[in-house]
Amino acid sequence: MIYPTIQSERLWRSLMEMAEIGQTSGGGVCRLALTDEDLAARELFVKWCEDARLTIRVDELGNIFARRAGSDLYAPPVMTGSHLDTQPLGGRFDGVYGVLAGLEVARTLNDAKIETTHPIDVVVWTNEEGSRFPAGCMGSAVFAGQRDLDVMLNLTDADGYSVKDELKRIGFDGPEKCGNVSIKALYEAHIEQGPILENASKTIGVVMSAQGLRCFWVHVSGIEGHAGTLPMDKRRDAFQGAARMAVAIDNLANTFVPHPVITIGVVNVGPGSRSTIPGTTSFMIDCRCPDEQGLNELEDEIKIICKGIAKTRGLEINIEMISKITPITFNKDCINSIRNAAEKRKLEHQDISSGAGHDACHVSFIAPVGMIFIPCEHGISHNETEYASPSDITAGAQVLFDVVVGAAKLE
Amino acid sequence: MIYPTIQSERLWRSLMEMAEIGQTSGGGVCRLALTDEDLAARELFVKWCEDARLTIRVDELGNIFARRAGSDLYAPPVMTGSHLDTQPLGGRFDGVYGVLAGLEVARTLNDAKIETTHPIDVVVWTNEEGSRFPAGCMGSAVFAGQRDLDVMLNLTDADGYSVKDELKRIGFDGPEKCGNVSIKALYEAHIEQGPILENASKTIGVVMSAQGLRCFWVHVSGIEGHAGTLPMDKRRDAFQGAARMAVAIDNLANTFVPHPVITIGVVNVGPGSRSTIPGTTSFMIDCRCPDEQGLNELEDEIKIICKGIAKTRGLEINIEMISKITPITFNKDCINSIRNAAEKRKLEHQDISSGAGHDACHVSFIAPVGMIFIPCEHGISHNETEYASPSDITAGAQVLFDVVVGAAKLE
Repeated sequence: MIYPTIQSERLWRSLMEMAEIGQTSGGGVCRLALTDEDLAARELFVKWCEDARLTIRVDELGNIFARRAGSDLYAPPVMTGSHLDTQPLGGRFDGVYGVLAGLEVARTLNDAKIETTHPIDVVVWTNEEGSRFPAGCMGSAVFAGQRDLDVMLNLTDADGYSVKDELKRIGFDGPEKCGNVSIKALYEAHIEQGPILENASKTIGVVMSAQGLRCFWVHVSGIEGHAGTLPMDKRRDAFQGAARMAVAIDNLANTFVPHPVITIGVVNVGPGSRSTIPGTTSFMIDCRCPDEQGLNELEDEIKIICKGIAKTRGLEINIEMISKITPITFNKDCINSIRNAAEKRKLEHQDISSGAGHDACHVSFIAPVGMIFIPCEHGISHNETEYASPSDITAGAQVLFDVVVGAAKLE
Repeated sequence: MIYPTIQSERLWRSLMEMAEIGQTSGGGVCRLALTDEDLAARELFVKWCEDARLTIRVDELGNIFARRAGSDLYAPPVMTGSHLDTQPLGGRFDGVYGVLAGLEVARTLNDAKIETTHPIDVVVWTNEEGSRFPAGCMGSAVFAGQRDLDVMLNLTDADGYSVKDELKRIGFDGPEKCGNVSIKALYEAHIEQGPILENASKTIGVVMSAQGLRCFWVHVSGIEGHAGTLPMDKRRDAFQGAARMAVAIDNLANTFVPHPVITIGVVNVGPGSRSTIPGTTSFMIDCRCPDEQGLNELEDEIKIICKGIAKTRGLEINIEMISKITPITFNKDCINSIRNAAEKRKLEHQDISSGAGHDACHVSFIAPVGMIFIPCEHGISHNETEYASPSDITAGAQVLFDVVVGAAKLE
C-alpha cells in the first residue's frame, strides 16, 4: 500500500500560528517552560488534538500525551513528539516542529480514515531547553528514569518559583504517573541545529547517535591587586590564567579526534573592576563528543591543561563536573526504517550524529528510538533567525509519517 | 632650627577612629563618595579641624579646605591632603592617611606654638576613587581645570543620584568657587599601593612621576551558535577571539620597555549561556606607562594585536578609548625637598614612579607638587586587608611635616 502524503500547508500554517505565542521583535520566540506563553502553546496544542479526536493525558511532570487509539487495546503505543518550550531568544522550529509534525501524522491518518493496530501518542515533553529551570530534557529524562521526579519538581527558576508550583499554577500538574510505560517505538523529528545537512545539500539526516556531554565549572583564584601599582611579574591574575586555559582548550578541540565540540559560554571575572587585577575567574566548559572513550580522554586533557597553567602562574584551581551525558546510539531498526522511508520518498539523506541533546536520547534508554533531522538555514538555532524551509519541513514530516505508521502497523 | 616631631600615637588613633566609619566585616572600609558614611567622615574631620582652630571652607564641588592661618595675609597657601572616600571594599589608609597626616602637621604646629608665613590648607578632595561616580579624582581635577564642573555635578551613580543632589543632601555644596586659587606648593602623603618599597626595604618613596593611562573598551562580535551542533571550524566565537587578544596583550605588557602595567579587569561574555557559542565579548583594557611615547606605542600595538586576531578569526571589532591620562612629572624643588627631609630624618628612601593616579597629579598642572609614599604590606591596596605599619605612617607624616613647614616658612 502507498502511504498517504501529509498536508504541507496545514503543517506550515500550524507552525506559524504556534510561533505567534511568545513571538519576539526579532522574529523569534520566547516561550520559557511553564510560563503563561508555554501555557498558551499547550492549550492551543490540546485544542488542535481534540479537534483531531485525540485523547489527552497529562502526567505529574506536565508531559502531554495525545493519543490516537489503535485497534488493539493492549498494544503499546508508538510515540512521536518533542517540546514546545524555547530558549529566551529561540526560533520558530526547535522542538515545536517535532510536536506539530507528530500532530500532522494523526491528522493525515484521520483524513485518510486509516486505522493502526498500535495507538499513536503525540507527546509534548516538559522543559526540554532547561533555560528557565536548570535541567534540560526534564520531562523525558524523568519519564525514562534518568532523573529523579521529586528533585525536578522542587527545582526553582532564578526568581525562586518551583517546577511543582508552576505546573499547578498553569494547570498541567496531571494525574498520571510519569514513566513506567511500555513503548513500541519513539520517533522524533527535529531541525539539525547545525550546518552539516545544508552544507551537504541533503534533506534528511538519519540520526545514528547523539554526542555525550561533560560540563565543568572551572574556578580560578589568584590575588586581587591595584591595576596601576602591581608590576606585571608580581601578579597572580586569575583572568589571565583562565584566558590561557580557554585558548588551550579551544586548540585541543580543534585537533582532537574524533572531532569534539568544546564551548566556553559563561565567564565570570571578579571583582569586575577596571582598575583591579582579577582575583577570581570562573568559567564553564561544555564538552561534547560522539564516544565515551573520547570524552574520558578529553576530560583528562582538560584537567591537565587547566592544572598545568594554574601551577605555572601561581593560581589556585578547582574543577567541578556539573553535568554528564553518556553518548547515545539509536536503535538499528528505527535507523533502518528512517533510511528506507527517505529512500522510498526519493529524498537525499545522510547518516548524521546529533550534536545537541534531545528528549529522544533519554527515551532511548527504555525503548527503540529513532530521530529524523532536517536542515536549518546556516545551521543557526537557539536564535531568533532560526529557519527551516517549507519543503524540508514537509520532507521530514513525511518520513516521520511513514516510520510512525510503519511501526504502528496498518490494519 | 630643628623641626618638632609629630605625635605618632595621635595620628594612628585618628586613623583608627576614622576607619570605624564605614568599617566592613573584613576589617576594611566602605565609604563611597557623598554617602552617609562619607558625610560622617567629613563631619569628624571638620570637628577635629575646628578643635585645632583651623578655618573651614567648602567649595561648590564639596572639596574641603581647613586653613591654619599664616602671618602674611597675602601669601598663597601651602596645601596638603588627599581624600576620605574609599573603594567598595577598600582599606583604612588609602587617601585618609594623606588627610590625617595633613591634620597632624597642623596639630604639631599648634603644640609647638609655631607660626608660618604662608597659610597651610589641609584639603579633602571629593570622589577621588571614582567608584560611585565614574570620574576618579573628581574634586582635584575640576579644581585644576582638568575636568568640567557642570559635567561632574551632573554625573550620576548606578542608582541615578547626581553629584549635585548628593552634595546638597549631605550639606557639602559649598559657597566657594572650585579652583582659580594661587598655591605655593602642594604635598600629598599616600601609601604606595604597590610592593616596590616593601621589597626594597625602604621607608620613604620620593615620587618622581605618575604613570599615564589609556583605557579602552574592546567590543568583539562573532556569531552565536549551538554549543553542540556547530563544528569547531565553522565557529566565530567572540570569547575565543577575546581570550587570544587578552593573552597577547598580557605578553606585550611583560616584554615592553619601559615597563607598563596592563590589566583586563572587566569581561562581559554574551549571551552568557552554557550551551551557546558567545556572539559577543567586551572587555576593558587599563594600560599604564610612565611616559607618553610608551603609551602611544602601546596603544598602536594593542590595536594591531586586537585587529589582527579579529581578522584571522572572522570577528568584528570596535575599540573605543574611554579614558586618557597624561603622565605627570612632579616639581623638581618639591622632589628635592622630600628627598632632603628623608635624608635629614635618616629614613631609607628611594625614587619611585606612582602607578596609581592621585589628586596631586591633577594639581601638578597648576602648582608645584610633591608626593611622599610609604610602604603598604605586600603591596596590597583597594582591599580590606590593606595595611601600613605605625612606624611607616609616622615616618611619612614626619617628612610631610618637614616639607610643608619648609614651604610655608617659619616666622
